[in-house]
Amino acid sequence: MAMIPTKVQINEEGPREGFQFEKGAIPTARKIELIDSLSETGLNRIQIVSFVNPKAVPGMADAEEVVAGFNKKPGVSYVGLWLNDKGLKRAIDSNRLEVRGSVSLCASEPFLMRNQNRTMEENIPLQHQTMRMFKEYNVPVTRGAVMAAFGCNFAGEIPVETVLQVVKQSKEIAQEHGFKLESMMLADTMAWATPASIKRVVGAVREANPELDIILHLHDTRGMGVANAYAGLEVGVKTFDAAVAGLGGCPFAGHKGAAGNVCTEDLVFMCDEMGIETGINLEALLESARLAEDIVGHPLPGSVKTGGSLRAMRDKIKTAQAA
Amino acid sequence: MAMIPTKVQINEEGPREGFQFEKGAIPTARKIELIDSLSETGLNRIQIVSFVNPKAVPGMADAEEVVAGFNKKPGVSYVGLWLNDKGLKRAIDSNRLEVRGSVSLCASEPFLMRNQNRTMEENIPLQHQTMRMFKEYNVPVTRGAVMAAFGCNFAGEIPVETVLQVVKQSKEIAQEHGFKLESMMLADTMAWATPASIKRVVGAVREANPELDIILHLHDTRGMGVANAYAGLEVGVKTFDAAVAGLGGCPFAGHKGAAGNVCTEDLVFMCDEMGIETGINLEALLESARLAEDIVGHPLPGSVKTGGSLRAMRDKIKTAQAA
Repeated sequence: MAMIPTKVQINEEGPREGFQFEKGAIPTARKIELIDSLSETGLNRIQIVSFVNPKAVPGMADAEEVVAGFNKKPGVSYVGLWLNDKGLKRAIDSNRLEVRGSVSLCASEPFLMRNQNRTMEENIPLQHQTMRMFKEYNVPVTRGAVMAAFGCNFAGEIPVETVLQVVKQSKEIAQEHGFKLESMMLADTMAWATPASIKRVVGAVREANPELDIILHLHDTRGMGVANAYAGLEVGVKTFDAAVAGLGGCPFAGHKGAAGNVCTEDLVFMCDEMGIETGINLEALLESARLAEDIVGHPLPGSVKTGGSLRAMRDKIKTAQAA
Repeated sequence: MAMIPTKVQINEEGPREGFQFEKGAIPTARKIELIDSLSETGLNRIQIVSFVNPKAVPGMADAEEVVAGFNKKPGVSYVGLWLNDKGLKRAIDSNRLEVRGSVSLCASEPFLMRNQNRTMEENIPLQHQTMRMFKEYNVPVTRGAVMAAFGCNFAGEIPVETVLQVVKQSKEIAQEHGFKLESMMLADTMAWATPASIKRVVGAVREANPELDIILHLHDTRGMGVANAYAGLEVGVKTFDAAVAGLGGCPFAGHKGAAGNVCTEDLVFMCDEMGIETGINLEALLESARLAEDIVGHPLPGSVKTGGSLRAMRDKIKTAQAA
């Protein structure tokens, strides 16, 4: 039986998620301001841009400028996202990012068909091609990713067997190119997960693949983000993707109510209060969350940035008692 | 070891919580509209008003009109809140509410001092007085309530021993007047709880009082509401207070960021998807949540009313597959 971990790794995806999704242009300087602010919180892995077609995602047209402009903090990995050879080259050429590849499969064929116009079977040779590309550029591959692992707006329920099959395929693909996967990201891309399905799917994947660290990528569209993260902790998950202030959304979900990732500071708050080490300074992170809100110019979903931390409350109580 | 229950009871507190807390007058007719809408959702216990001093809580000045005006649905208990003899008499005189008393204690002395200007010890004779009042009016008492059971903005952490002591006192107070408590509400009045403390406190209270059903009253100020409810389910809690759309706040918390109860429809969504029976029609409840938002005229915190249910998604998928 897995135990709640004593330490977790939180990967910040807010800048990339947010800048990609927000309507209206955010000035490059303000994007950099948020990244620099996040660098001071103790977060050690921050995804800052995606190298995608600026025509498709205008909010990311300044990716190179953002990467050139932020202050690199020692000890922090800055990463980007890309979807093809061209994007990967841009990431490498930026020269300031940690570039790591992954085997990325999808557990829902209708989702894949809709967004990439290919079947799950057709996706496999494409992944092999991607692996060859990573080898060519000397990009290490240690991570797998399964999209729509907990359900899909176009397929409905995803059988656990399908997820297990896709994880197996990911490992085989990596292996064929001499890579060895160390972690597997299970993404609740369209917010179908509940604590029960988190436990069921993570449990099955772990049992079949005890060598893999599980990473949970949770969207908060139906308010289950923190509860799902807690369920993940209970089955021993040690790594979570999250977005400061709950920035973001999912442009591919075919669903305008889709929300961003689970909110980083709410997750850090829960960990802090449960005695789980994150290495992140919550008060500093709350400043970043409020900055994010200021930058996008509308309220963002996170709760603790409004409700306040308990550390702040405890300090207030101490001061009052001393007076 | 407790098991996740197969069926839960959700007590709706949105109308009372919301109308009390919202700034600006809400027309009586619209309050009634929300109550009538909630009556059609399958909720079987709805707290609709509080009988408090209209000078202190102007939003509740029309309590009698609200009670006189709503459509009573058979099988639904409509309840009110009161803080003193005068309020209780108003509740009884309204003649349309289920009137039940409770022993209400607080686990935080600083909170009690601040809001009611009395110590925990001074509170006990007052509770005895209240019990005599209930007897006089033939009001049954089967429920205890512990405020600030998980932490306090003025006291900080609340030791589990204090909660246990307060629960013991509640039982003794009831017993002295010939009442027998059947349930104990543990309130996270100021949103200090995390899933870990829910399990710790509920576990200890249950172990010492196996005859009591535990009711959780969770505020969502720090985004932990749904996760805390899930932790409660995991330790066998079968009854939850909740507020449609997350209406409400806590005017006594000395904290302007304080949020309302855990959102009813988000909780129902989680239960539905985990196969836990609530007796509530989620789609109807989502309509009520959107109505609540329309009535207060600003966005309310619940997620599923924006994100949509999965039942709706599944229907869409079925229709698409059939086409």
